Amino acid sequence: MTALRKSGAYDRAEELRLAGFLFDEIARMSPDVEGVSRPAFSDIETKTLSFLEDFARREGLEVWYDAGLNANFCLPGDRDAERYTVIGSHVDSVPFGGNFDGLAGVVAGLLCLVRARREGGKFAFPVHVLAMRGEESAWFGPCYIGSKALTGTLSASDVAARHKGDGRTLDAHMEAIGIDMAPVRAGKPLIDLSRIEAYLELHIEQGPLLIGKAVPAAVVSGIRGNIRYRSLRCIGEAGHSGAVPRAFRRDPVLAMADLLVRLDESWATILAKGDDLVLTSGIVGTDPEKHAMTRIPDQVSFSLDIRSQSARVLDEMRDLLKTEMAQIERDRKVRFELDEELRVAPALCDAGLVARLSKAMETVGQEPFVMASGGGHDAAVFSAAGVPAGMVFVRNRNGSHNPQEAMELPDLLSATDIVHQYLMVAP
Amino acid sequence: MTALRKSGAYDRAEELRLAGFLFDEIARMSPDVEGVSRPAFSDIETKTLSFLEDFARREGLEVWYDAGLNANFCLPGDRDAERYTVIGSHVDSVPFGGNFDGLAGVVAGLLCLVRARREGGKFAFPVHVLAMRGEESAWFGPCYIGSKALTGTLSASDVAARHKGDGRTLDAHMEAIGIDMAPVRAGKPLIDLSRIEAYLELHIEQGPLLIGKAVPAAVVSGIRGNIRYRSLRCIGEAGHSGAVPRAFRRDPVLAMADLLVRLDESWATILAKGDDLVLTSGIVGTDPEKHAMTRIPDQVSFSLDIRSQSARVLDEMRDLLKTEMAQIERDRKVRFELDEELRVAPALCDAGLVARLSKAMETVGQEPFVMASGGGHDAAVFSAAGVPAGMVFVRNRNGSHNPQEAMELPDLLSATDIVHQYLMVAP
Repeated sequence: MTALRKSGAYDRAEELRLAGFLFDEIARMSPDVEGVSRPAFSDIETKTLSFLEDFARREGLEVWYDAGLNANFCLPGDRDAERYTVIGSHVDSVPFGGNFDGLAGVVAGLLCLVRARREGGKFAFPVHVLAMRGEESAWFGPCYIGSKALTGTLSASDVAARHKGDGRTLDAHMEAIGIDMAPVRAGKPLIDLSRIEAYLELHIEQGPLLIGKAVPAAVVSGIRGNIRYRSLRCIGEAGHSGAVPRAFRRDPVLAMADLLVRLDESWATILAKGDDLVLTSGIVGTDPEKHAMTRIPDQVSFSLDIRSQSARVLDEMRDLLKTEMAQIERDRKVRFELDEELRVAPALCDAGLVARLSKAMETVGQEPFVMASGGGHDAAVFSAAGVPAGMVFVRNRNGSHNPQEAMELPDLLSATDIVHQYLMVAP
Repeated sequence: MTALRKSGAYDRAEELRLAGFLFDEIARMSPDVEGVSRPAFSDIETKTLSFLEDFARREGLEVWYDAGLNANFCLPGDRDAERYTVIGSHVDSVPFGGNFDGLAGVVAGLLCLVRARREGGKFAFPVHVLAMRGEESAWFGPCYIGSKALTGTLSASDVAARHKGDGRTLDAHMEAIGIDMAPVRAGKPLIDLSRIEAYLELHIEQGPLLIGKAVPAAVVSGIRGNIRYRSLRCIGEAGHSGAVPRAFRRDPVLAMADLLVRLDESWATILAKGDDLVLTSGIVGTDPEKHAMTRIPDQVSFSLDIRSQSARVLDEMRDLLKTEMAQIERDRKVRFELDEELRVAPALCDAGLVARLSKAMETVGQEPFVMASGGGHDAAVFSAAGVPAGMVFVRNRNGSHNPQEAMELPDLLSATDIVHQYLMVAP
């Protein structure tokens, strides 16, 4: 703890040093071949929370663990408030991940508490900072495990999911670190959700928009929902690449290309109308067992991930997909087969919170900027459980879930300023 | 040999039985898990030639092996003719192949000799039937091995190629069956090419054109040349599928789709202008080590096989490819990387032979139909060696190089009629 200067003075430089100290110490506890690895419901995760606990106690904060063994922090006296606002995020990471996805939100919450404590101030209402476990899907498959357990929405198939490394179930892993699994299995909330006034989450942006716009932070309008197909197959007819004339071909690769280009063109049109949409085919492939440079392949498979903040746009895109597929099937004599459609509804942030966060942003001297979140977050789980949710993004280079994540600490403080300002003003 | 009725009478039914007998017996000698396997320069190949030798001797034909250990057949007295016409094809097959690719041409040649012999007739000029070894690339990599050895064009890298199964070189395999490899290694022709008046080859069509046109046979105008790229890579930038807005994306999959659709559109235009072209991307894939449904891939690779009878069209397509790639690179902020361009020049059939074969086709009551060959054949090797080459295709269902090859014997006889008629008329 030598890096931390204990004194009454608490200026910006001190706050930067404090944030840097927390990130550096935690990175040192969770190194991997590349980047950091803080597995969900692991000893490393427990030690990370324990490190934060020690730090918070030294700062004079109250600390306790909830029934999901997540760490909770507050100013003295706020723990038992009848209603309170949560500043939450997670401390686990993906394997070989960056140090900021999740942890940035926890550090920001703690910085708010420390700033209030050191400056001898008070928030306009009781605040709990929540450092959660197990948000990343990389370890077991299901995501948002910590927040789902808290809200009583972890499913039987979630707890039966097996760890990618040791093959033991999530249930066993959670029990092993000391969580009483009976209420989790029964789908009972582990906390009284009616006491939560609002759930706020600060998170690094996982895309390049803030870098592109050259602004350090943004208020999030909502989390994009999605329609996904893990595997669409286009089935045509195999043939000799040199011997089959164009008119006799049923080429699935050209049919897939045709479909993707049509979707891409519609995407541009939808954006031009002012709607929100992103579209990705992340997995594309002919069959390595059968394909050859000199053979028209009999089929090709590809994934589709279509996301929007608007359920209407998602529906429109699904209809468009089906219409275009039918046309291409007719024109190119191929057949498309879709596997199960996975659908997640968009989660809009609470309009009142968006307005108050935008106002806070203005108050601290930043031009209000509101954007959509492409990735999912614990905030969506609280929102689905009926808790008004809001989010703040921090500028971050190189995306997330990789060691190259590059959030600058001054940007984190700019975003923290927004949250802190929000907490200072009664609604 | 019980299936073969020995008698003076030699009608169509007898010829069908004869052809069926030859195909059935040879299939029985080369069965595999599925279809037939007659490996190049193997004992099975040797036994196939030996079976044909026995058959031919019983029919009163002359038989001998050339220095490449290919079997040669002719009517008595024609062996030492100063100049002669060759009816050639190969007896090897791909693994798990069909029984007709190659063998059909050998059987057709023998049927011509048997028909002449039984009917007591003579051809208008000396004719040798050539049953070659090792045409398929599936066993060693290089193709047309038998005809390249005969014409002295087997390269050092060809003979150094290793068998896919046992890893031994082609040189070792050829030597093992008794071929004197010294002249082959030295690139000396094993036969006097100046004695060959013309090289004719009958082969099953490897595409569906004759099925589509409902005609049993065709004269071949030439063998398509090609420009191939085993692997084109489109390199973009990885990113979160939900978090990167369209304007910030450098999506290689959409860029590839764009390129393929542009090439496809140009293909249609080129055909509309009356030029010959086929285009195939047989291998397409994102990297299975890195791709995910929720990630914009950083790159995708794909193959291109562009074929035409016209060297000009091949050049035009290569120029078009480069122009389109440059445009897409600019528009979509991606980069294309091409590996080595493989190029095979188109091999036109001899115009005089095409005319005489078309005339023969008309004489035997078939409407003359001339088409391009998409696949390569030994005929191209003889053509490249300066021997005027011609080909006749037989209607065949389900393409070639698979057990589902389905040539009907009456169609083979229709095509054989064309060759036979050609041999009956002096030029």
